[in-house]
Amino acid sequence: MTRPIIGRVAPERWRTIGATAPGQRTVGEPGTARIAVDLLGGDQAPAVVVDGALRAAQADPALHLTLVGPAEAADAILAALDPADRQRISTTITTSGTARGAARAVAQGRADALVSAGDTGATVLSAARELGRWPGVRRPALAAVLPTAAGRIVLLDVGSSVDPDEETLLVHAGLGAAYASAVLDVKNPRVGLLTIGTEPGKGDRLRRALPPLLAARPLPAGASYAGLVEGGDVVLGAAADVVVTDGFTGNILLKGLETGYALAGPPLISQEMPPRAAVLLGVGGTVVVCHGAASGSDLAAGIAHAADLHRRASVAAIADLLRYSEVSHD
Amino acid sequence: MTRPIIGRVAPERWRTIGATAPGQRTVGEPGTARIAVDLLGGDQAPAVVVDGALRAAQADPALHLTLVGPAEAADAILAALDPADRQRISTTITTSGTARGAARAVAQGRADALVSAGDTGATVLSAARELGRWPGVRRPALAAVLPTAAGRIVLLDVGSSVDPDEETLLVHAGLGAAYASAVLDVKNPRVGLLTIGTEPGKGDRLRRALPPLLAARPLPAGASYAGLVEGGDVVLGAAADVVVTDGFTGNILLKGLETGYALAGPPLISQEMPPRAAVLLGVGGTVVVCHGAASGSDLAAGIAHAADLHRRASVAAIADLLRYSEVSHD
Repeated sequence: MTRPIIGRVAPERWRTIGATAPGQRTVGEPGTARIAVDLLGGDQAPAVVVDGALRAAQADPALHLTLVGPAEAADAILAALDPADRQRISTTITTSGTARGAARAVAQGRADALVSAGDTGATVLSAARELGRWPGVRRPALAAVLPTAAGRIVLLDVGSSVDPDEETLLVHAGLGAAYASAVLDVKNPRVGLLTIGTEPGKGDRLRRALPPLLAARPLPAGASYAGLVEGGDVVLGAAADVVVTDGFTGNILLKGLETGYALAGPPLISQEMPPRAAVLLGVGGTVVVCHGAASGSDLAAGIAHAADLHRRASVAAIADLLRYSEVSHD
Repeated sequence: MTRPIIGRVAPERWRTIGATAPGQRTVGEPGTARIAVDLLGGDQAPAVVVDGALRAAQADPALHLTLVGPAEAADAILAALDPADRQRISTTITTSGTARGAARAVAQGRADALVSAGDTGATVLSAARELGRWPGVRRPALAAVLPTAAGRIVLLDVGSSVDPDEETLLVHAGLGAAYASAVLDVKNPRVGLLTIGTEPGKGDRLRRALPPLLAARPLPAGASYAGLVEGGDVVLGAAADVVVTDGFTGNILLKGLETGYALAGPPLISQEMPPRAAVLLGVGGTVVVCHGAASGSDLAAGIAHAADLHRRASVAAIADLLRYSEVSHD
């Protein structure tokens, strides 16, 4: 089953998706961003989610948030909200999983983007089922942005595909290249493959098989395969703009570096840290995933990031670069 | 075929191995450390190896180094050495691989330890063949020490076993625990398994299978299994003293963190960095592996580390903790 890339939505529910997807109407005000937040996502949920929502709403007057959770939790949250906050923070009651409920709000046009700090697997599955996957995307990719000594770098996957096959990493290379171009404005992104030595034949079975396949793969946005890179290259940033790896290795490296930078500072003094939140690429909507251990300010940054991606119509721009025009619900 | 743990050596060639392995004689002076160095190991070899050897010899008057390489390179190095340096830096000509030749020097008692910045796979294979492996060790483990916010941590494997099975990681847990106890003086080491979330069922196939097996595994030195840890825990250091992972993930995390710490500083300000060199555990001798991109000072630190491990008879102490008394050459 296929449908337009921006979501299977009733005509009166069209979401704001930007100029790159023609023929759409919007229910939100210009500049408004309506974010569905998984109320039970995160180790410290729901308290940390409410804290994050309040911080995000305070920082951005055009933000409308709906906290998606079971009736009891949602009612309690709503009762505790300041009347002024209730103008822009509402709740949506779900009887299925909270990530699923939030994804459904996006699919039905009631929200522009989804943010969750809950179980990554559940969020990826919910997003794929409710929003559909782009053609050829077996497993969507979680893409994180890290500061480096030479600018920002896209690292993917950071937790969606833990036992991927070759084709999944080849698809992720394209998704990462389109993301770097559309969101970070990188010209002709260089895509590196993360491994443990730059001589041919190094690495595990998957990494030994991939280089010729990556070199032969057409990539979007003028991107090209830049060869093998190592863990240190994700810190230095000189060898590649996009680094492709499996979700297991990527998650471990991401959390190690993020924790190190939080303690010791980023690679360049006074560098601004990107939000500690990853974007799910390959589904028909804007989905941002925060760490399970996310703080209130991490969640607020994730919500602000989702709003920014929505306002810039980033997902539609990435789909355009990849020449995708529909999603599948197979 | 089996032989005593400290090496299959002619009686007149017994190496200094310390008080823990009885019945040994030594040819070196007390305190002397004789290190065989792979002359062609490292991206910038042999120049960087000679630089490292000179720095190490200058810093430690009781060090004797033999640079193992092919005739032409060895002769050129020797001719260029200052007469004073020739007292303690000699060359050994090998017609097989240089790592193999250096391992043979240790096996034959002509050296106390081996240092290489060459291809990790070749060094591991050479060491296993020439020095033998401990019982049950299918694949030796490369163990690195990293600074954390709570002290030092042992991370293994960092590059020896890239596609390991469950049993290999279980054996590595024991090797790492013994190393933490014998070398870092950690009491009752806590052994964590590196994965991408601490809830049960997270991680890839290998990591989902391992926790019950690790919990049931007898560990040496009063060690115990401390559960699942994440990338950030290798920076914080509070959750475990030893972190077990496959050599692919471990190598990438190690190089990422080392590069980050080199740029931004270690997790604690003014913390002293451990040598950027890993120890090969599970073979019948002292083997230190430096990165292929090692600098002269990295190699000097690796040589000093090997000498220190030899003088403290660390390998024999680790074998004692694991109740190994012989190696196999199967």
